[in-house]
Amino acid sequence: MANNNAIKNEAITGRDVDFAQWYTDVCRKAELMDYSSVKGFIDYLPYGYAIWEQIQGFADKKFKEHGTENVYLPCVIPSSLFNKEKEHIDGFAPECLIAKIGGGKELEDPLIIRPTSEILFSDLYKRQVSSYRDLPKIYNQWCSVVRWEKTTRPFLRGSEFLWQEGHCLFETEEEARKNALDMLEVYDSIGRDLLAIPFLKGRKTEHEKFAGAIDTYTIEALMHDGKALQSGTTHYLGTGFAEAFGIQYLGHDNKLHAPHQTSWGVSTRLIGAVIMVHGDDNGLVLPPRVAPTQVVIVPIRQQDPTILPACREIEAKLKALGVRVKVDASDKTPGWKFAEWEMKGVPLRLELGPRDLAEGKVTLAKRYNGEKLTGSIAAIEEEIPALLEAIQEEMYQKAKAFLDSQIVDVKDLDELKSALDKGGYVRMAYDGTPESEDKIKAYTNGGTARCIYKDAPAGTVCPVSGKEAKVIAYFAKAY
Amino acid sequence: MANNNAIKNEAITGRDVDFAQWYTDVCRKAELMDYSSVKGFIDYLPYGYAIWEQIQGFADKKFKEHGTENVYLPCVIPSSLFNKEKEHIDGFAPECLIAKIGGGKELEDPLIIRPTSEILFSDLYKRQVSSYRDLPKIYNQWCSVVRWEKTTRPFLRGSEFLWQEGHCLFETEEEARKNALDMLEVYDSIGRDLLAIPFLKGRKTEHEKFAGAIDTYTIEALMHDGKALQSGTTHYLGTGFAEAFGIQYLGHDNKLHAPHQTSWGVSTRLIGAVIMVHGDDNGLVLPPRVAPTQVVIVPIRQQDPTILPACREIEAKLKALGVRVKVDASDKTPGWKFAEWEMKGVPLRLELGPRDLAEGKVTLAKRYNGEKLTGSIAAIEEEIPALLEAIQEEMYQKAKAFLDSQIVDVKDLDELKSALDKGGYVRMAYDGTPESEDKIKAYTNGGTARCIYKDAPAGTVCPVSGKEAKVIAYFAKAY
Repeated sequence: MANNNAIKNEAITGRDVDFAQWYTDVCRKAELMDYSSVKGFIDYLPYGYAIWEQIQGFADKKFKEHGTENVYLPCVIPSSLFNKEKEHIDGFAPECLIAKIGGGKELEDPLIIRPTSEILFSDLYKRQVSSYRDLPKIYNQWCSVVRWEKTTRPFLRGSEFLWQEGHCLFETEEEARKNALDMLEVYDSIGRDLLAIPFLKGRKTEHEKFAGAIDTYTIEALMHDGKALQSGTTHYLGTGFAEAFGIQYLGHDNKLHAPHQTSWGVSTRLIGAVIMVHGDDNGLVLPPRVAPTQVVIVPIRQQDPTILPACREIEAKLKALGVRVKVDASDKTPGWKFAEWEMKGVPLRLELGPRDLAEGKVTLAKRYNGEKLTGSIAAIEEEIPALLEAIQEEMYQKAKAFLDSQIVDVKDLDELKSALDKGGYVRMAYDGTPESEDKIKAYTNGGTARCIYKDAPAGTVCPVSGKEAKVIAYFAKAY
Repeated sequence: MANNNAIKNEAITGRDVDFAQWYTDVCRKAELMDYSSVKGFIDYLPYGYAIWEQIQGFADKKFKEHGTENVYLPCVIPSSLFNKEKEHIDGFAPECLIAKIGGGKELEDPLIIRPTSEILFSDLYKRQVSSYRDLPKIYNQWCSVVRWEKTTRPFLRGSEFLWQEGHCLFETEEEARKNALDMLEVYDSIGRDLLAIPFLKGRKTEHEKFAGAIDTYTIEALMHDGKALQSGTTHYLGTGFAEAFGIQYLGHDNKLHAPHQTSWGVSTRLIGAVIMVHGDDNGLVLPPRVAPTQVVIVPIRQQDPTILPACREIEAKLKALGVRVKVDASDKTPGWKFAEWEMKGVPLRLELGPRDLAEGKVTLAKRYNGEKLTGSIAAIEEEIPALLEAIQEEMYQKAKAFLDSQIVDVKDLDELKSALDKGGYVRMAYDGTPESEDKIKAYTNGGTARCIYKDAPAGTVCPVSGKEAKVIAYFAKAY
């Protein structure tokens, strides 16, 4: 919904004209990032990084409530170590950046810049774990990882991205699976309670799971263009890494066992999700809880000597309540300021001019739908926080309604193809095999199983193989 | 001062027997870090990383109060870009780790894993700055850097360490120098107000300044063994990088100017400083403000059913006040627990047994000097926070008294040599030249100018060159 009251920002491509270009325009014009001189890498600028800091703060607190402890492991992995877990290396080898010179000398064991750290955590645990008394280990690190990508897109796919990676060890499969599912709930909460993004949540198919995992769980978001975005995954890794690295613990039964492992991660990709779920033709739209600036105060007739002090007073009151607020006292025109802060997606604009002041009022404009309200200066400390919470909830409900409207059920490949061409999620029963998914992808021009919805009812036939259908999955075209 | 009431921990080397071995023992036994399988790199374990998180939280808040914005730039620098600033590349080239393979192919322009990011920030600013309206830029990033070191020591020198690096651009030299000095004050405050470490603070000599800087400012701490530890530096870089990278802005005068640059950083080296300033023969000693756990509650006669609930109640009360507290309800003996938590440096131990409980009392033991006190359960919410603040202050005063006692003034090279052999800081007037410092270093077996104390009084003769002395510097042997 465009804001008809605002000056139309001509600098960006229309969202429904060219979504990919619109996305790039928003990333640049809202000053979230810049393209680095290092090919394939981006610079995370203050405004983009501040969003990441909000996500970090929210997630880190939840992780710690689940007993997670933060650590930091090396940013490089010796090749000799990397080669220990076969499936894993096969999955990551083609994307590796490899260092071969250190301190002026050729390295005997070249170092891979970490693409993910299962290997190093396994190696640490090998040294740290020998008894059931040493378990569980619930470790996480905040860092960047490098994956050499041919085609890149800001926040969505790049040669380096910021993330957190949890790597945990437990005595039993049950505890490990619980951890993988608990963390999936944390990720779901990042969407629901911070980013105003409803996720589809579920287990990945055999074809789509992580290299080296027994089971991968995922949160999947739906972008405005109808494409899915995998937004976070958690993995139950079984005992494969533990066995490859010789991690064993002496159990309560006085026998040696291999512990059960999990890993889980979310990344700066979530910033991409926020942009593509909420953004509009005027730019970025941020939900209040994640917005670095929640309220911008724009003085009207700033030259009037009563106006700026009144703006500052409101700012101080809101700041004292913990609201992230700023006054734009620059010498630009109000219209220019409106457009600029709309581009940056600030959830609430507060306008104050001499007439408002005389009447004890302010004009409030909600960024996400352009709605204008009148507020009372006297009640500002009650109204604004309540309004921010309301906006948060409304934005979630709007995104949820869109998601719900974009899920259809189909029964065969032609229906699937035509539904996927329209965009959104399409549920279909099939046999759950990688072979069928390969065929589906080819037939539908890129449709993939995003996650499993539920088991297929008994007796359903897979429209791909003609065999018995095992599961119903959500299919979509995805980033 | 050893705590005579505690079980002596036999696992670590005496501090005055072999300080280097003691240091390593503390790092390992307090579970601050582990040696990684990646040669020269360490694993930052939860307890060590939690100390870093305290430092980050404290510093980040102060940085932001000074208008700093956080960003994140790539972890690699193309060789072609790195070669643009001559002095800088000369300083760092021998320590570089260089990637030559990406995505299976030889890279045309090899990538240096960042040893510091002056280059990338300059490159970013080249793209972002064109007018005085774009200034100042006060950016910082939290990240790790890689410097290929031959000999390493946990937290003090390693092939990878965690740090923050501020990189800022200003219109004028005055603003830039003010930023470098403001940040030096922030660093000083990390010592004074968080780590209970008094720093010597001052400008580096020509010989010791950063590669590419006009002036380097430093905070220097004194370790228990009498050696200095450079703990953080800020740099006024002048316009050198700006000129090398072609950064120019259109000034208020409508002419093009090169902006003035600063950089500044502190690292996980500060953890090493905390260990070596405060630690004793029983292990780590943490000041309350930086301690991940400030109070450990040890139940005495834990089998008594009234004890654990009473401990939990005290824990809950203190937690509600924001005190970082935990009850050790493990099945170890109290003596064992005492030794373990002393090794980990928890500032305050609270013991509670049936007799204490009956009398409404608790026994309190200060980690840093072993002093035992009696506390009142009824007044626990007043007493404990006040006691923690008192311990913080006492630890600072103790460290300050030690530092003050270890500063002597000398007039010639022989006095300097003999004073430096004893340890501590030695002040001497000299001509301030790199040549004299080289001679001093050779003559004293490693003594270096740590920072400038003040200008030498007119007419003083340099004992090294026989020329006029320019400055009085603090000399020390340093890590």
